[in-house]
Amino acid sequence: MKTDFIRVTYRIESAKPLDIEKKAQGIALGQTTDTWTPNVRSGLAALERHRGVVLATEAKGRGLAGVPDESPLASHIYHITIGYPPANTEGDIPSLLTMIFGKISMDGKIRLESIAFPSSYTKGKGPRFGIEGLRKKLKEPKRPLSMAIFKPCVGLSPNELSEMFYELACGGLSFVKDDEILPNLSICPTEKRLAACLKAGLRAKKETGHHTLYAVNLTGRPSELLPRAKRLAQQGAECFLLNVLSYGFGVLEELRSVGVPIMAHPALAGAWCGSSNTGFSYAVLLGTLMRLGGADLVLFPSSYGTVTLSSADTDAIRDELTSRLPMKRSFPVPSAGIHPGLVPRIVKDYGNDVVINAGGGVHGHPQGARAGAKAVTQAIDAVCAKRDFSSIPVSEMPELTQALQLWGRG
Amino acid sequence: MKTDFIRVTYRIESAKPLDIEKKAQGIALGQTTDTWTPNVRSGLAALERHRGVVLATEAKGRGLAGVPDESPLASHIYHITIGYPPANTEGDIPSLLTMIFGKISMDGKIRLESIAFPSSYTKGKGPRFGIEGLRKKLKEPKRPLSMAIFKPCVGLSPNELSEMFYELACGGLSFVKDDEILPNLSICPTEKRLAACLKAGLRAKKETGHHTLYAVNLTGRPSELLPRAKRLAQQGAECFLLNVLSYGFGVLEELRSVGVPIMAHPALAGAWCGSSNTGFSYAVLLGTLMRLGGADLVLFPSSYGTVTLSSADTDAIRDELTSRLPMKRSFPVPSAGIHPGLVPRIVKDYGNDVVINAGGGVHGHPQGARAGAKAVTQAIDAVCAKRDFSSIPVSEMPELTQALQLWGRG
Repeated sequence: MKTDFIRVTYRIESAKPLDIEKKAQGIALGQTTDTWTPNVRSGLAALERHRGVVLATEAKGRGLAGVPDESPLASHIYHITIGYPPANTEGDIPSLLTMIFGKISMDGKIRLESIAFPSSYTKGKGPRFGIEGLRKKLKEPKRPLSMAIFKPCVGLSPNELSEMFYELACGGLSFVKDDEILPNLSICPTEKRLAACLKAGLRAKKETGHHTLYAVNLTGRPSELLPRAKRLAQQGAECFLLNVLSYGFGVLEELRSVGVPIMAHPALAGAWCGSSNTGFSYAVLLGTLMRLGGADLVLFPSSYGTVTLSSADTDAIRDELTSRLPMKRSFPVPSAGIHPGLVPRIVKDYGNDVVINAGGGVHGHPQGARAGAKAVTQAIDAVCAKRDFSSIPVSEMPELTQALQLWGRG
Repeated sequence: MKTDFIRVTYRIESAKPLDIEKKAQGIALGQTTDTWTPNVRSGLAALERHRGVVLATEAKGRGLAGVPDESPLASHIYHITIGYPPANTEGDIPSLLTMIFGKISMDGKIRLESIAFPSSYTKGKGPRFGIEGLRKKLKEPKRPLSMAIFKPCVGLSPNELSEMFYELACGGLSFVKDDEILPNLSICPTEKRLAACLKAGLRAKKETGHHTLYAVNLTGRPSELLPRAKRLAQQGAECFLLNVLSYGFGVLEELRSVGVPIMAHPALAGAWCGSSNTGFSYAVLLGTLMRLGGADLVLFPSSYGTVTLSSADTDAIRDELTSRLPMKRSFPVPSAGIHPGLVPRIVKDYGNDVVINAGGGVHGHPQGARAGAKAVTQAIDAVCAKRDFSSIPVSEMPELTQALQLWGRG
């Protein structure tokens, strides 16, 4: 019995009771070496090491939220774990996905819940920098990091964005990122906004001594993304933002070689993970696979803000990004609707290895973006000093006080 | 009022009644130029041409299959249509997807149902060959086309696959394709199996006069896929198979320039489309977007076989692939569990512009793969001659008769 299988656990839901052993066997064989009819080559010895195996099956009873278990609406629920040979893949995520959830993703109510890899498989994979590498780069050994997003973004020129960058950088943030919806537009070409924002960052640093990294959105044709990323790195790019699900996990994996930190955006993830009985769990898509692919930071909707996930989902993503494995850890970046008043709660839920990421909750500050950024920085200062917000005199942290007055304490 | 919007219709489900106008407005603005808090730049005139607009909203009542409408389980259902400016994209599908279903895909129960493009947007897009171009290439002006899949596939050598190719080609099929789960493995490198299958195809042609196209699975790193496809084309590749959702729509769009027909596989589509209240409709993912991206043929689970979609879904995919638009039409390829007995039903449902695609239903023939391929060809012959299967003497089509005895008439 080989022990180096990729172990994939699925949740299967069925209106009728299933012969779950048979079902699991059908998946293990159908996604590897066999089909629905045996033929003359089915028994070949050469196929043996490429065959999937059933590692576990479990009946989980019946259920449907809000419906009695004996109701005809309640489904039969099963968990199965299949072992897949890594030898059937190219060692990359695209060929992995085709094997573990290609055709069977379409086979009724089946959800991919988790993946565990043999350590031989994860060697050389995962974040290039990770939490520790980014902290070193930022000279910030312990505290939570902070970030703001350009808002608005699409429609503005490189000059306008760089002015915004300057204001936000003066507020002391760790990162400023493009909005994910800003691609390479003729009114705001990637190279020009990178140049403008790097210059604005230097100007801010001269004044405040603080350096803010710019995460530039990398977009374009697949064949050009890697050479382009290398050119942008030569131009001084300090961090790439990537819409991993729009461009493909293969792009994420290739970018790792450039040697610039990568920030993964979850755009489209709801299409893959929004259902409880089909698709992927959020933990496996935004946790396991993003980390495996090399994302140093991973954004996802928080459980607090405007677009939200359940705290069970965000906890599971956090755990997949930061669990002790023979791979570097990725920074969790709970996002959407974040404002300074939420900082104590975020740090309570995530610890210090987190990035406080605000868009509207920085730009909407009554005194403007710089004050909004300052309010975030002050909130982190207060939390790190273990000070309760209510004990802070207005004169000491006026920007934070104003933010709390406007948006509350979460 | 601009008329060149990309019009996207969403289905939204909510436990509580919604102010749907407000919700729609939030999406139109949030996915383009605004955020949840206004700021000093929100009103800039430059943003105007980048702003999304609400084109329609409609309350569709309440419902949940099997539950009375007045039950607390029944949800409120709405349809909304948003107009997005093409100027916010790079004209490619990845930046389109980020705009129309990036962040909002995670915002509760929302499903992307359909997309309509202005004709200015589809110019130069769509299949390079399409149904007419493929028919010309295959010298098959009218009849349904046919295809078989290598089964088994992963674990075999180029030589073994080429023997299988020879047998299938002698059976008179239009295409033979790699199984989608076969990437570029050291035991079966893409270039070597292409060379072996092309040679086997020539051998079969010498004997039967019939030419069968080999659809070779294109896999690898995103930056290398385009140059690789060009090298394979020089080597003689006649058709590419692509797992579009594993590798990204951007890869599909780039491959169009190579000038070799592209066959899109739906691997992973269930993760995007398997839920009725999140993700994408099958019609938009496997129909609208595959055609827009340039797929000449699109595989999807049929409503008849082993892994099935509803006939409402497969009808809608077919219609999106073949509707009259200023773009070439793509061949629908209903797949999974197809056998010769199903041919009359498939032709009834799709017309002649369809590919009959069988894996197990060819290889599992009692007389082997060549006989299985012949049975498919004979079934098409019979249907095109408007002959009922029961009227055909065993001696005339012995392979078909055997297949019907084994698998029935579907």
